[in-house]
Amino acid sequence: MALNEQTRREERRRIAHLVLDLVKARGTEISYNAALAESGLARSRFEQVFPDYDALFEAVAEIWLAPHLAAMEEVLASDLPPVRKMYEFVRSRFAISRDRFAADPEYFTTICEMGAANFERVRSYVDLADHYMCELIADAQADGYLAGLEIDEALSLINQMVAMYTTPDALVQLGDKLTEAKLARIIDTIFIGLSAESGEGARGVGTLRLAQ
Amino acid sequence: MALNEQTRREERRRIAHLVLDLVKARGTEISYNAALAESGLARSRFEQVFPDYDALFEAVAEIWLAPHLAAMEEVLASDLPPVRKMYEFVRSRFAISRDRFAADPEYFTTICEMGAANFERVRSYVDLADHYMCELIADAQADGYLAGLEIDEALSLINQMVAMYTTPDALVQLGDKLTEAKLARIIDTIFIGLSAESGEGARGVGTLRLAQ
Repeated sequence: MALNEQTRREERRRIAHLVLDLVKARGTEISYNAALAESGLARSRFEQVFPDYDALFEAVAEIWLAPHLAAMEEVLASDLPPVRKMYEFVRSRFAISRDRFAADPEYFTTICEMGAANFERVRSYVDLADHYMCELIADAQADGYLAGLEIDEALSLINQMVAMYTTPDALVQLGDKLTEAKLARIIDTIFIGLSAESGEGARGVGTLRLAQ
Repeated sequence: MALNEQTRREERRRIAHLVLDLVKARGTEISYNAALAESGLARSRFEQVFPDYDALFEAVAEIWLAPHLAAMEEVLASDLPPVRKMYEFVRSRFAISRDRFAADPEYFTTICEMGAANFERVRSYVDLADHYMCELIADAQADGYLAGLEIDEALSLINQMVAMYTTPDALVQLGDKLTEAKLARIIDTIFIGLSAESGEGARGVGTLRLAQ
């Protein structure tokens, strides 16, 4: 019997929450068959909800990343000036991850490992974050910041400089070394120092002169 | 029979190289017992060279990281001005990792995984890099850069901003997105923008004002 669309959606959500609970309880990624066994559904029903592991993982990631998505959209809709807006764009997601890590380091670490192992399946989230960041960069450039840089160039540079605050894995390694105060300084540094019109001091260095 | 010190040092080096060859050939970390079996030594001899896995790993890491160490020391001894010197300090090690990754991505990735799994055993290398970076920061401050920051504070901020170029794992994930030209811009951005005396624009933001 085919599931109707509403039941399918409800089951998708219920089982994705169940998988997250199982990850927390067992401390390891939950396979397709384990999720099937725990779901209480017959295999034919389960397969209608999740044709493969990709579909299951996507449903789980959707729930896990929902607060990040909401935070990004809240910041985008705000009327903060460019510097504060970019700071909040990174900070709000960092705060979510930091609080989750503090609440249950082991669970958080397992989820990070799952994300790393299934990176292609969370790419759409990364792409969306990049898309929003490009909007913030364009706004900043309209205000005279990040002068002379292509948007893609600025995006890549900024992403690299704030990577410790957007890569959840970094929390596992660095923990307390990551703070909102430091992130604020990094964002300030970017807005003051990053432009194509100054600061060529380090560029074009091919060889190293040694002291005699 | 006890090995004399010179033989012990030669065997240590020979076996560490052998382990790196085995990692390359097999694509996986080599256990203490596998290294023992391949070494051709009797267990009692092997144990004199490597009392435990820690000792074995340290010998392997020493060989793998020798070019990084030499590069750091070469830059430290150079008479480059502060911006270029810090750029070279990061760039030279990045170039070694990038070339190794390009030459054999699988081997490089396995070594990264070994490093991550045995992070405490490479901590002395990380500590040394931090120590050298502190020297560069002090020199830069003597020239008026990075004004008003404690050295430890500057160290942490700079380490975070250049982390993608000093963490070998980042190459595995980002590959071609990491370039020397971008690193140069990041170093320039740090020298222009990072100071405690300006740029408080993003600081002290506790709440988010939303557009009506």
